[in-house]
Amino acid sequence: MDTRLLLISNSTNAGEEYLAYPMGEIGKFLRGVKAVRFIPYAAVTFSYDEYEAKVQRRFDGLGIRVESLHRFTDPKGAVQSAEALVVGGGNTWCLLRKMQEFGLLPVVRARVAAGMPYVGWSAGSNVACPTIKTTNDMPIVEPSGFEAFGLVPFQINPHYLDANPAGHAGETREDRIREFMVENPSVWVVGLREGTMLRKEGSDLQLIGGRAARIFRQGEPPREVNPGDDLKFLF
Amino acid sequence: MDTRLLLISNSTNAGEEYLAYPMGEIGKFLRGVKAVRFIPYAAVTFSYDEYEAKVQRRFDGLGIRVESLHRFTDPKGAVQSAEALVVGGGNTWCLLRKMQEFGLLPVVRARVAAGMPYVGWSAGSNVACPTIKTTNDMPIVEPSGFEAFGLVPFQINPHYLDANPAGHAGETREDRIREFMVENPSVWVVGLREGTMLRKEGSDLQLIGGRAARIFRQGEPPREVNPGDDLKFLF
Repeated sequence: MDTRLLLISNSTNAGEEYLAYPMGEIGKFLRGVKAVRFIPYAAVTFSYDEYEAKVQRRFDGLGIRVESLHRFTDPKGAVQSAEALVVGGGNTWCLLRKMQEFGLLPVVRARVAAGMPYVGWSAGSNVACPTIKTTNDMPIVEPSGFEAFGLVPFQINPHYLDANPAGHAGETREDRIREFMVENPSVWVVGLREGTMLRKEGSDLQLIGGRAARIFRQGEPPREVNPGDDLKFLF
Repeated sequence: MDTRLLLISNSTNAGEEYLAYPMGEIGKFLRGVKAVRFIPYAAVTFSYDEYEAKVQRRFDGLGIRVESLHRFTDPKGAVQSAEALVVGGGNTWCLLRKMQEFGLLPVVRARVAAGMPYVGWSAGSNVACPTIKTTNDMPIVEPSGFEAFGLVPFQINPHYLDANPAGHAGETREDRIREFMVENPSVWVVGLREGTMLRKEGSDLQLIGGRAARIFRQGEPPREVNPGDDLKFLF
């Protein structure tokens, strides 16, 4: 099926305006779309209203209306009738739990399988994966399970980071992903560095941005892939 | 009840030998103990045998035998008859899931309530809290729930870290704890910096180490507490 996905590592690069770096790609990806339905449930320390307004300000530049699901009495119906879906970042656990409560997982899967464009960043990219087992977020609420949309067969680790701050002894991101692989040996993990994204159009998968992605699978050395490289092995 | 707890942020400071900095405190805390039972289940990328041997090498200096639970056919019984319990760091999710599988939670709680000394570091300090909702670890396996030992009424965030690496836009640790507080407004969180630990002896709670701890609760400004400060408000 010709699913269309734009899975972005992070909303904003350090020192830049909100959603500045991915906006050109979002515009190209959503060409012809008049309104998107927006899932705001990853917001924790600010309101869904504020989140919608913040995203709308950026999407104004594309001439696209942003309609947040929290304004609908029937969020499932809002997904059912969406032209395109945008899932914002924040806390992955809060996002998944709310989507479970509203029963959104099956309807999002069905609509994406039928061709509805999906844009996610950070937590919104995490939930496009089979599970949220490669999130960086603190598990501040308990969802009913770790299964997510499964729009791609691999896991994304957004905000992928090569090193710890100097002098910090905690696990590096690579340490954590190595642990993931031991427990989940058949699953590919894409360490998606900030400033980059994956775009899937049908069977074509592209890395976009100015940096390589680091790809992991149990039993293989990590590999760096660059924009333009063939990523079909991930399917 | 006179519970005795030594809850350590991290096993090892950057550039030091394994368990070097907390060893003096562990020795004082376990004075008179001949053998400890060790919970190795947070180990993921190395074996339980290796973990036991690594800890034994350090405990040799204290003249204390380390007996890992993975050697016992009845892990519950091994806790039941333990002189003292030591819970090592690694992945909090793997640690909790295995302890749930073996039904260890109630027996550890009962033994600690009856005075058995408990030493944990990193993941081993996380599971001493009511839940594992303030872990930094990647949720690479799914436990049956987030509830942990609840040996203290507050949450610890081990390896507490003040800043991100330069140029990284992901959430800081404080951002993550602020999200926790919104969802869990009645719970204190202790950001326990590397190189520090909490020691509870009956109703006395001390911060030990060369750095302050950062304490959070919804609706209050974060406060820095120093070794020697009164921490009874956490109870």
